[in-house]
Order: sequence, then C-alpha cells, then structure tokens
Amino acid sequence: MSTSNGVAHDINDLTLAAQGADMIDWADASMPVLATIRRRFEAERPLEGVRVGACLHVTTETANLARTLAAGGAEVAVCASNPLSTQDEVAAALVVDHDIPVFARNGEDNATYYAHIGAVLDAGPHITMDDGADLVSTIHSSREDLIADIIGGTEETTTGVIRLRAMQEAGVLRYPIMAVNEADTKHFFDNRYGTGQSTIDGIMRATNLLLAGKNFVVCGYGWCGRGLASRARGMGANVIVTEIDPTRALEASMDGFRVMRVAEAAEVGDVFVTVTGNKSVIDEPHFEKMKSGAILANSGHFDVEINIPALEGLSTSRREMRPMLEEFLMSDGRKIYLLGQGRLINLASAEGHPASVMDMSFANQALATEYMVKNARSLERKVYPVPREIDREIARLKLDSMGIQVDSLTGEQAAYLGAWQEGT
Amino acid sequence: MSTSNGVAHDINDLTLAAQGADMIDWADASMPVLATIRRRFEAERPLEGVRVGACLHVTTETANLARTLAAGGAEVAVCASNPLSTQDEVAAALVVDHDIPVFARNGEDNATYYAHIGAVLDAGPHITMDDGADLVSTIHSSREDLIADIIGGTEETTTGVIRLRAMQEAGVLRYPIMAVNEADTKHFFDNRYGTGQSTIDGIMRATNLLLAGKNFVVCGYGWCGRGLASRARGMGANVIVTEIDPTRALEASMDGFRVMRVAEAAEVGDVFVTVTGNKSVIDEPHFEKMKSGAILANSGHFDVEINIPALEGLSTSRREMRPMLEEFLMSDGRKIYLLGQGRLINLASAEGHPASVMDMSFANQALATEYMVKNARSLERKVYPVPREIDREIARLKLDSMGIQVDSLTGEQAAYLGAWQEGT
Amino acid sequence: MSTSNGVAHDINDLTLAAQGADMIDWADASMPVLATIRRRFEAERPLEGVRVGACLHVTTETANLARTLAAGGAEVAVCASNPLSTQDEVAAALVVDHDIPVFARNGEDNATYYAHIGAVLDAGPHITMDDGADLVSTIHSSREDLIADIIGGTEETTTGVIRLRAMQEAGVLRYPIMAVNEADTKHFFDNRYGTGQSTIDGIMRATNLLLAGKNFVVCGYGWCGRGLASRARGMGANVIVTEIDPTRALEASMDGFRVMRVAEAAEVGDVFVTVTGNKSVIDEPHFEKMKSGAILANSGHFDVEINIPALEGLSTSRREMRPMLEEFLMSDGRKIYLLGQGRLINLASAEGHPASVMDMSFANQALATEYMVKNARSLERKVYPVPREIDREIARLKLDSMGIQVDSLTGEQAAYLGAWQEGT
Amino acid sequence: MSTSNGVAHDINDLTLAAQGADMIDWADASMPVLATIRRRFEAERPLEGVRVGACLHVTTETANLARTLAAGGAEVAVCASNPLSTQDEVAAALVVDHDIPVFARNGEDNATYYAHIGAVLDAGPHITMDDGADLVSTIHSSREDLIADIIGGTEETTTGVIRLRAMQEAGVLRYPIMAVNEADTKHFFDNRYGTGQSTIDGIMRATNLLLAGKNFVVCGYGWCGRGLASRARGMGANVIVTEIDPTRALEASMDGFRVMRVAEAAEVGDVFVTVTGNKSVIDEPHFEKMKSGAILANSGHFDVEINIPALEGLSTSRREMRPMLEEFLMSDGRKIYLLGQGRLINLASAEGHPASVMDMSFANQALATEYMVKNARSLERKVYPVPREIDREIARLKLDSMGIQVDSLTGEQAAYLGAWQEGT
Repeated sequence: MSTSNGVAHDINDLTLAAQGADMIDWADASMPVLATIRRRFEAERPLEGVRVGACLHVTTETANLARTLAAGGAEVAVCASNPLSTQDEVAAALVVDHDIPVFARNGEDNATYYAHIGAVLDAGPHITMDDGADLVSTIHSSREDLIADIIGGTEETTTGVIRLRAMQEAGVLRYPIMAVNEADTKHFFDNRYGTGQSTIDGIMRATNLLLAGKNFVVCGYGWCGRGLASRARGMGANVIVTEIDPTRALEASMDGFRVMRVAEAAEVGDVFVTVTGNKSVIDEPHFEKMKSGAILANSGHFDVEINIPALEGLSTSRREMRPMLEEFLMSDGRKIYLLGQGRLINLASAEGHPASVMDMSFANQALATEYMVKNARSLERKVYPVPREIDREIARLKLDSMGIQVDSLTGEQAAYLGAWQEGT
Repeated sequence: MSTSNGVAHDINDLTLAAQGADMIDWADASMPVLATIRRRFEAERPLEGVRVGACLHVTTETANLARTLAAGGAEVAVCASNPLSTQDEVAAALVVDHDIPVFARNGEDNATYYAHIGAVLDAGPHITMDDGADLVSTIHSSREDLIADIIGGTEETTTGVIRLRAMQEAGVLRYPIMAVNEADTKHFFDNRYGTGQSTIDGIMRATNLLLAGKNFVVCGYGWCGRGLASRARGMGANVIVTEIDPTRALEASMDGFRVMRVAEAAEVGDVFVTVTGNKSVIDEPHFEKMKSGAILANSGHFDVEINIPALEGLSTSRREMRPMLEEFLMSDGRKIYLLGQGRLINLASAEGHPASVMDMSFANQALATEYMVKNARSLERKVYPVPREIDREIARLKLDSMGIQVDSLTGEQAAYLGAWQEGT
Repeated sequence: MSTSNGVAHDINDLTLAAQGADMIDWADASMPVLATIRRRFEAERPLEGVRVGACLHVTTETANLARTLAAGGAEVAVCASNPLSTQDEVAAALVVDHDIPVFARNGEDNATYYAHIGAVLDAGPHITMDDGADLVSTIHSSREDLIADIIGGTEETTTGVIRLRAMQEAGVLRYPIMAVNEADTKHFFDNRYGTGQSTIDGIMRATNLLLAGKNFVVCGYGWCGRGLASRARGMGANVIVTEIDPTRALEASMDGFRVMRVAEAAEVGDVFVTVTGNKSVIDEPHFEKMKSGAILANSGHFDVEINIPALEGLSTSRREMRPMLEEFLMSDGRKIYLLGQGRLINLASAEGHPASVMDMSFANQALATEYMVKNARSLERKVYPVPREIDREIARLKLDSMGIQVDSLTGEQAAYLGAWQEGT
Repeated sequence: MSTSNGVAHDINDLTLAAQGADMIDWADASMPVLATIRRRFEAERPLEGVRVGACLHVTTETANLARTLAAGGAEVAVCASNPLSTQDEVAAALVVDHDIPVFARNGEDNATYYAHIGAVLDAGPHITMDDGADLVSTIHSSREDLIADIIGGTEETTTGVIRLRAMQEAGVLRYPIMAVNEADTKHFFDNRYGTGQSTIDGIMRATNLLLAGKNFVVCGYGWCGRGLASRARGMGANVIVTEIDPTRALEASMDGFRVMRVAEAAEVGDVFVTVTGNKSVIDEPHFEKMKSGAILANSGHFDVEINIPALEGLSTSRREMRPMLEEFLMSDGRKIYLLGQGRLINLASAEGHPASVMDMSFANQALATEYMVKNARSLERKVYPVPREIDREIARLKLDSMGIQVDSLTGEQAAYLGAWQEGT
C-alpha cells in the first residue's frame, strides 16, 4: 500500500494514468445515463460524506461509476472483484486524476486479493457495492464490527443475489441489500445484448473464425442464450440450441433454431458455447463424438460448464496456438479447441459488456445508493428489488440519450386501461 | 333450436357437415398434443359424466377440443364467443359426426347470441369454459342457481382473466377459475407466433401488398407486438415501433427497430398495426399527418385501438375496394385505407391463430379441466394459474410431436444447481 | 364475340365492371411508376395510332398497363396468356370503362383460348406483347401475313425469352423482341421479392399452417429460391436448401441455411417448395421417405417439378380437404399433402406478384414499347435487352415514389472512378 | 538480405518461427480445400521446377498457399504486397520450417518495399502472383528482361484486374493473366462473408461499442456493402444504406434497410462505414452535420473514402484514445471518431478475411497456377477468367469439407433442361 498525493492505493503502475484517462473518457462517451446522473449529483450532492466501499471489476465503466458517486459527495474506495479483470491504466487514472483510493493489481494473487478487500473495508463503508458478494460475505464472517455503520449494500450479479437471498432466508443477513442485478434495465440488457455481442466478439478475437455457415451450438436458451443465438445467426451461422427446459426449447424451435440434445449436437457442431449456469454441460461422452476441429467456449457463469478435466483426460497433448486458444490433441487424432481456458470468453478474449450496457447497470448502482441513503431508516434486513421508478427512469434517460421519444398515455387512455383492467 | 339424431342444436346448415369434417381433420393434423391427450382420455375416461359448457370461437380447433373432452367422458355443449367467428361447417360436423350440441350461427344477432349462451347453461354445466368470461358473467348475474353444481371454470383470454381477478378481489367470484391464458405454453406461443404470423397473413389477404420496403409501424411492443415486428421484418419491411413503456421501447431499439412516437411515425408509415390493448392509439392528429395511401389495421383487442369515428369525421367518403379493405377519402384528397373495419385483422381477413398454436392452448383447456375435476374439493373461489407441471408437460408433448428431444439434468447437475441456488 | 358501346369483346360478365374498377384502382395505388409514365404519355402521346396486341394475364396490373398504353395513344387489344388467371371483373372494367377490347374468360377451354389469340391478332398489331411467346409463336407459324406490319414485340417471361433466343439462333425470328424479363428492375424484384412473399402467402392461404418451427425445404437457390428462403426464415421456419450447383449451395450455407440433398431433406422436411425450373425434383424415392403430414408445393415454372403421377402411384386415395389442399393417403398409412395441384402456388392460392412488383415489370413493358416505336427503323431481328437507361430510370421513378433519394457522383468522384477504372 | 540454412530472406526476426508455425497451423485448420489440393500436389508434382514469385500479404493464409505451391514442386519466393500487413512470425516460419525465401518486414519503408519486390523478381519467376499488380507493373516498366521466361501471372484484387484489363486494351500487356479475383468462389465469398464479418470484427475491437440499437450507415450496397449491412443488422443495429445506383438502392430498400443520401444519413448515423471504391464519400458537409460521438470507418478500397484532410480542417485537435481510435475535436465542441486512420478497418484493427474465405481464394491461386503451367502454350496476352470448372471444383471441395452433399441432375432432368433451354 502506498500514498500518492494523499490518496492511498495499491496498484501496479501510476504512470499509466494518462492512458487510463483516455480509456475512461472513451467509455464515458457511451455512458450518457451515468453522465446525466453525475451532473445532477454534482449539483445536489446527495451522497455528501457517505463512505462507499466498492468491490467491482476495475474497468473504465467502474471508473465512471466511481466518478459519479464522488460527484455526489461520496468518499469512494475501490478494490477488484476479480484478480484478472483489473485494467491497470484505469486504476492509475482513478488515483491520479480522481483522488479515489484503489486497491487492485491485474494478476494479483489470492492473498493480495483479500488484503485489498480488507483495505476497502478499513475505510468503514456506509454502503457496500458488490459484484459477487465478497464484501458482504467478509463483513458477515469476520468484520461484524463494521455492521453498525452500514446503511446497506448493492449487488450486481445473479450469483451474489442468490447467496444474499439464502442469507436472508436463513435469517443471517444483517443489513439491507438492493439487488441491482434484477432491475429490468440491468439484466434484460446486459444478458441479451451485452453477452450476445461480447461473446461473438470474444470468439472472433480468439479465433478469427468465419462464423457464416458454421454449426453454432448454444447450450442454454435463457436470456444470455437468446442473445447469443440471435447474434450468431446474425453472423450467418446455423444455430443449434440445447436446453433442459421444454418450454424454452419450444421457443427456440419457433424462433427458427434447431433444437436437440447436447449428445446429438456434439456430432454436428463446429462451435459450442455454454451459457447455462450449470456444470459439465459439455462432458466426456460429448467430446468423444465431436468432429475434429470443434471449438469450445463458455459464456455462462464459471469455468465448470465445459468439463475441462475430462477433456484433458481424453487428450494426449494441450498447446496454446494463439492467445486464448488451446488445441487438445485427442488420442484418436482429432483436435478439439478450447477458448479462454473455459472461463467467460467475453472477458477472457474481449472486453466484457460494452460501456453502453454497463451505463444502465451502473446507473442502477448510483441511484440505488442514493435511494438507500435517503431511505436509510425505513429499510429492513432484506434483499430489495430496485424500485420500479428508478428502473423506468433509467430507461427513459437512455432513450433520451439516443434521441428517442415515446408516447405517454392520454387521460382518456389511462382511464380506459384503468377501467378495463378493473373489469368494469 | 332443433334436434338432429337426438342432439339439440341451433346452427345454420346441417348439410355442411362433410365439409366441416375435412376441415376438422386438417386442423387435427396440426394438433398432435391434443390428439395425444385424446388417446389417453379415451382410455382413462377422466371426465366421465362431467357436463362441460363451452363458449368459444366455433372453429376447427375448438371442434378438436370438444372431441377430446367428449373422448374423456364429458357431455359437452358449445356456443360461440363471437357472432362472426363461427365456422358453420364445423358446427354442422360437431352435431352430425360427434353428437355434440352446438348453438352457434355465423352472423347471429345479439339476441340469438345470448339465447345460445342460455342454451348451453340450461344443460347445467359442471365446468364452464370461457373465451371472454361470458358464461361466468351470465351465471353470476342471472343464473346463480347453477353455481351449486359448478366445479370450476377456465378462461382463455387476457381480458377475461383481468375481469375474473377483479371479481376475486371484490370478493364476488363464486367458483374457482383456471387462467389458461397465463400458461406459458398458451400466451408465449399464441401471442408471439400466432398473432405474429396471422396478422401478416390477414394483411396480405386483405391487400396483396408487397411488404418488402414498406415502413411498417407496430404500435405496442408487448408479446404480440414483438411477434408481429419480427415477422414484418422477416417479410422485408422496415419496422417502426411505438410504445408508452420506456423499457420496452429500449428493447425494441436494441432489437434493431426504429422507435418513435405515433405522431412521428404517422408521417412516414406505409402500414400501421395496433397491438396495444388500449384505445385511440391512432387518432385524429395522426390521420392528419399520414401519407396518402396509408393502410391501417388492428390486431390488439377491440376495434377501438384505431379511432374510426375520427377517421370518418375527416373523410368525405368511405368505400369498400376489396373485401375487408375500405378507402377513406380525406377532405384534402388523401386516401387512407382501413382493413377489416378495425376489428382483429387476423380473424377478419385470415383464419386466426394456426391450429398448431391452438393445440397448446386447448391442451391446457383439456388438462385444466381434468385437474379441476380431480381436485374439485380442494379448490377455492380464486383465479388459479395452470399448474406448472401441466404447462411443462404440454411443452414436452409438443416437442415430442416435432421429433425434438431435450436434455435432462444429471444427478450431479441437479445437485450443483441446488447447492448453488441455495448459496452454499 | 360481342360488342359493347362499339368495343369488341368476349368476356364472362359485363356487369362486373364496377367491381373491376375498384380492383384496378387498388392496384393502381401500388403502381406509381406506371402512373407517372401514364401522365407523361397523356401529354406526349408517343404511341399515337400504334396497335398493340397484348397476351398477358388479365389482372388488375395488366389493366393498368393497358390504360397506360392507351393513354399514350395506342389502340390496345388484350387476350389471356393463361385460361385460369383471368379476373372477369377486370376484363369487364377494361371494356366498359376504358373502351379496350378484351378477349378472355376465366376458365375458357383450349379452343376459346386460341380463338382469343386469333381475335387479338386480327386487329393487326404493330407491337406484340407476350407472356410466354404465344402471340409470336402463332404469328410465326400461321399468321405470317401480319409480320410486314409488325415493329416488334416484348416478352415478359424467362421461358419465352429462351424460346425466342432459340428462334434467333436458328435464324427464324422475323421481328425484333425486347426481353423485358431481363431488365434488372423486372427479374431482380419479381423473383426475389414477388415470388418470395407470394409463395409464403399462397402456402398460408392454402393451409393456415404455422410456419414457425417448421423444417421448410426450398429446392433451388436461384433468385426465387433466395427470396423464398429469406421470407420463410423471416416467418420463423428452419430452412433447408437443396441445390445442384455447388457455388449456390455454398452461398446458401454461408447465408445460414442447412444444405443437403433432396433425399436427406425428404426425411426431415415439414414443408417442401420447388423453385428450380426443372422436373421431378421431388420424386418417388423422396415421397417414400417423407414424414406423415409433409406438405408439398411448387413455385417454380411448371407443374412437373413435383412428380405428381409418382405420388399418385404410391397413394391409395386423394381427397381435397380445403381449397387447393389435397391429401394423398399412402399405402403405408402416411399422409402427404399437395398444394394447388402442383401448379404455381402463388397464383393458385394467392394473387401472384403484388402490384408494386408488377409496377416495374410493366413500366418496362410501356417504355420498351415506346422505345421500339421510336427506334423502329434501326432494330434488327434479334432479342434485345431493355436499354440500361430505361432500367435505371424505372428504378429512379420507383425510389421517387417511395420518397427515397440517392446520391449522385460529384464531378471529382466521377473523375476518380474514371481514372481508377482506366487503371491510371 | 541474409541467408539461413541456405534460404535467402530479409525478415524481422527468425526466432519467431515457432510461434509462426502455430499460427499457420491454426489457419490451416480452416483451409481444407487448399489442404486437399496440397495432398494432390504432393502426389502429382504438377509444378515441378516452376519458379513462382508471389507478392501477397504475408499472413498465415499466404503461408499455406506457399506451402501448397512448394508441395507441387514449385520454387516459391515471397514478398509483401503491403508494408503493414506482414506477420513477422509467419515470415520466420516460412523461412525456417518451409525453406521458402521471404522478403518482408512489418513496417518496412518504401525503399525496402521495392527492394523486396526486386528480390523476388531476381529469382526469375515463371509465374507472378499479385495482389495489386505490383509485380506485373514492375516487370512491364523496368524488368522487361524477365518477360521471356514468364508463363503467366495471377491477380487477386479488383483494382489489379482493372489495371491489367486497361493494359490489355491498350495493347501493352505482355503476358497472360488469370483474374483470380473474378472467380465466383473468390469474390462472392470474400466480399460478402469475409468483409461483412471482418468489418464488424474490426469495429468491435477498435471500439468495444454495443452495436445493438445504433444507427449504422453503410455507404455502398455492392457485395461488400450487402455483406456488411446484413451482419450489422445481425448484431442488432438499425442499418441505413446510401447508394448512387438506383437499382441497388431499391434492392437495399426491399431488403428492409432505410435508404437515404449521405447528407441525410449524416444527421442520424452513429456509425458510418464506407465500402464504395470511391473517394470523399463522406466529406466536409457531412462532418458538419454529424452528431457528437459519430464513429467513422472505411472498409472499401483506399483511405480516401472518408475525406480525412477535410475532417482535420474542421477540428481543433486529434488524439488517439485507444489503438486505432482517434478523436477529432470539432471547433464547435462535437467529437468525431475515426477508426484505423481511415484505412481498411478489417485489416487495421482485426485480422482481415478469415482463413476459411482465403481458403477458396488461394485454392483458385493454386489451381490457376497449375492451369497456366499446363496450358502455357495456348495462352495469349490477355486477362483470363478462372475456368469455370476450377471454380466449381473449389466450391465442391469446400462443401465436401463441410460435410455437405448436393444433388446431381438425373439424365431425365438434364434432358429436360436441355430441351427446355433450347426452346423446344
């Protein structure tokens, strides 16, 4: 840990700040909603004196969120929610240009990772901001002393929200949480449009493969799977969907995709992408049936969706042919290619969700924080949805930034709908 | 009312039965789920002795539902839920070939319409089956004597369910209802795929218009609007979406459509279709801005989505140029065309939802009836969703009929998901 | 043959004229290019005194062409190019409202058909206008006396142009022909957009089948096949393409379609449409493999693309279930459905190409006629393409009518392109 | 110039060979047609002793072509057709692993570039292989001594073919050329599918921009423009097309795109891509109307499609914000972003055409070379198309590699088509 100009930090290279500033600026150009909120925060200072501890991917988008919170008067400290996603340039720019303490080094080891969480917690946050519940878990397990000062926390991910709900149900959640993940303007957009595009992007960067004419297997037809299937078709691929849910399978079929079991898809697929949230979706029996040249990637949750140990077990060698692209030479001579070591391909080989998508997620973060501060007294130890008005307001601001106007109900229409929905 | 071979009926023409039989057969070819249920019903007879009063569109698909209920042992009587949708050939075939009492004449007047409802109720149904809550309304208002014998009812439409929920909340609903409309296998499929295709079909039959290159305005981006927008784009149209909900508007935009207010769309649109459930969505100020040649249709709920009186007010003449296509000559010389008198264009000018879609809706009807009969004692005076297992079973049967197999969770996967969702 | 108000005719029912007038008006609303030409023709009278003999489908679009020629000063006489496509209302309106002699009765027998051709020829045309080379064939075989007066002819179809080219090569073509079929603004648009949409339209009218989720087999990936494949996908179908040309097959694959041989497609297809120009594309071995319920249609040239006699040979009964939909009961119990008796499904069960497409085809007819009259002296006994300027002018007029403006080369750009293309 | 193991070369770094070998292997996995040809060449040695001088982009795909020619017995020497596209790893691997002389350094200056061309020519090629006519130009202008030994040349690009045709017409072309560019399996596929995908890829890598919902302006609707428009729509963008040709504009419109002039598009576009082959397509008046944040890229021919000097003239500063992304700050405060300095974005920021596309282009190169050697005596000093059989054979091999089979004409069908096309 060091200090620069009075700002505590532990980052890789302060001299990258200028480069980081350009990168943050570029993201800012696609984050008009957050910019609008920032301008209002500057004027209204709704977070004056509020200490925010944020454990998020240290990226250009997070930098713009941190700037926004600071503009509202908050004292923000940032650590990384993943050791590999930190952009060192951004970390430097936050410290140098924005006087925001950052504790994050790309490639940091496990000990450093937790030390950095500790550093953020040492500031005594009023608000915790999580991407995977690391802050809230640490506080509940070993820093319970901090709880008295905490107003609440926000959570960005599905995984985190599931854990927090489980804590609530077990009666052990000790402060209120807003499930930012569940805002319509968050999950509708980052899952479908963000994951859809960035997965294609990641695959193209890793392989430079022509997608047109390829049998492209999408395992899972949830929101991510739908986005991905649509984009893969948009690139000319022939998309095959696998599912365990019959209703979703039927939708995929009526959306014009072929639907089959993974075992059948394994025989015809050229590219396979898992987006299920489950494990071993592509497994040993499937590897055995694949064509030589098959390419595997994961864009779901963890690197267990493809059973990599099983793949290794069937292979006689493994070599990296290009960054993020490994060849497994099977004992029967076939070659199977794995992208990004089975980790999220849009992060491993591309840049994650585009800023335009994070704009809405992080607008939810900013407004949820403001809401918690304003309503500190009335909030209970529960997981709350983001209030509907905040969600709609963000959609409206986004549309504004795109120059799009929508209609409002006339008085007569509102009356008609009201009457009708009341059944009279 | 007459009797033929001991079957009571009031229909237009018994001699159409043979033709009706062919039509019913053809629909049956696209209703494999209902056929599967029918075969089981024949074996198990779960509706033995149950009197079912059905107020539905008297179409080939309804005929296949009625046959299925009868195969299960039910005594079915049918009247029309709309005076214009009755297929007289089908009515005849039901009476002649299936011994099912039918009270429905295409084009019947209001008095006959209600007399027919009365005729069905006179049979003293145990189960009411509604498409717009007409049976349940009549019973609650003027045939309360029947309630003692009633096990429950089903409701096919959004409108009906809204009314019934209002009745439940007002504490006046006197028997249990299953909201068939809300089954995933019903509304996901008939709204998106059924309305989507059949609206395009209706417009093409009414106009023979080339859709490629046309500015095609879809008012409303609910499930129907999404289906329609997708199909219109699939025909080469350039689709514009109007909305009042900012989140939906944003989705439409990210789905690649132009989004604007009706007032702006009015200036550029070639074809306008309302699918909102609201009234006067296209109104006087919009008519005033439209290009000469603009074509208007409704595929939402009622014929009030387009303000037809206002259109008439602005016009100096109205003539039918082709069936279901009227020209309004505006006082400034422009011509605006209205399809199907503003009524649902997919019914007015095409054949409504294809049988393949109704297969699932009516499978829900059949299985919901069976469920109510089996669980008659435990049901309360509430609006119930169709049980999730029924819904999924129907999806599974549909996939089977399409030759599609889906995966099942392995034990290991189920354990993983369970653990994960519990946050451990 | 009779006379009405001095106009010779042989049509089914003069009293249909008012209805025909409405229909012609409606088509006119989608034929702005022809209308523009008509207005110019009225002012300039470029066809003053020219006798035009037209053997075309007697439809609303042809009526608007005939009106346009007449507006230019021509004396037009019309007979049918197909006994089944005549719209009797249109025939009546042409006689009554436009004083144009028409010799066409829907359903006319062969003898009448040729008598009608004779009636048109009796007028001694200066210009022949053919849709399948019937006039030009008759003249060359049995009315050579007329040739001295003939300036030239136009031909609308691929088939006709092939025949005429063969005549030219054999040295027997005795007057100049303009191959309207080959204008870009004709074949690009009617094949892709016209056939694409109207084939889908025809299938929906004949079957009311839900296309979403169906395996839709398109035999042939020429311009018609591309249009159809694109539209079928747009309706949610899963499209399979069959081809004999490897380059086209590769394109289909890269366009995201599955490509296989008819024999393989036969096993999985739900709907099959031939658009090849060849014969027995779907044949006995294919029928034997098809799933029960398979639906067959042709949208290519003649009713030989599907081997119907072979289908009959395999079946034990044939019945019409709906108009244009026949069931063949196979001896093994499977049912195969044939649409429109294997004739062009977009004509048999829908209304052929939309007026908006015919607008450009017939604008080519009108301007080609004008061109031939103007250049009568310099034309040789050859098949000519429509001059490029006419073709481009029609595209420009169409764009104008759609309110679309395109860029023009700046002087600098023209110089750059010129220099570059000259390789300097 | 140096020598390694007896192989002459001038490259940046021999130690990169191992890395280059992996990269070449990876491309090889997507080049099955070339691999099939290579296996045959190894057996048949059709190029034994033939000296081939190749001036191509020194990439993994070119390496696989060079290996194939060498396998056929040729003595190949390679220089770069562009100073910036050389992959130094590939150059090293060619020298070290394949004993092929390479004269190419990434970033080489103009003098070196021409020295490298000279080095290849010094080997006295029998066949020249060009990507832009550099070898053939140099030979005709200053190395006429070589012409006596030359059998012929091949040309990969449109630009080159235009120049060579101009030379032929001027009567100055002194040896035969095969226009590989014009093979169907070359230009159909690399323009539509290659440029389409790789342009999207380049834009995403340069910007990480969410394309969904963006107004994406495609200037030019030739094959490249079509491919790009289709892919951009596939990513959820709202595509606007600009054109100078009215027929193409009409096609774009019927394909569902908005069509307008560049001047109008300038006001609404978010992203602009030129694919015209022309100059100053986006020019000063357009920059003046653009929204702040507009992004410009070129995927056409040269970096003159966007008038960059004019853009600079309107701006007060220019800074690189990310690699290949520059911000121009306009004097009125707007920001306009230029990608890849206006050079081909798919090369500047992505990896050019995917190997799968180059597979077919380079199969044409290999087979055209074999053809010229075999037919050396009969070829004249002309630009020849690739023979149709070669083109079709390549399509067939590609389909084979994809596991796709197509139909063949039966004898009966061939007879039918023959008869029909002869008009009998």
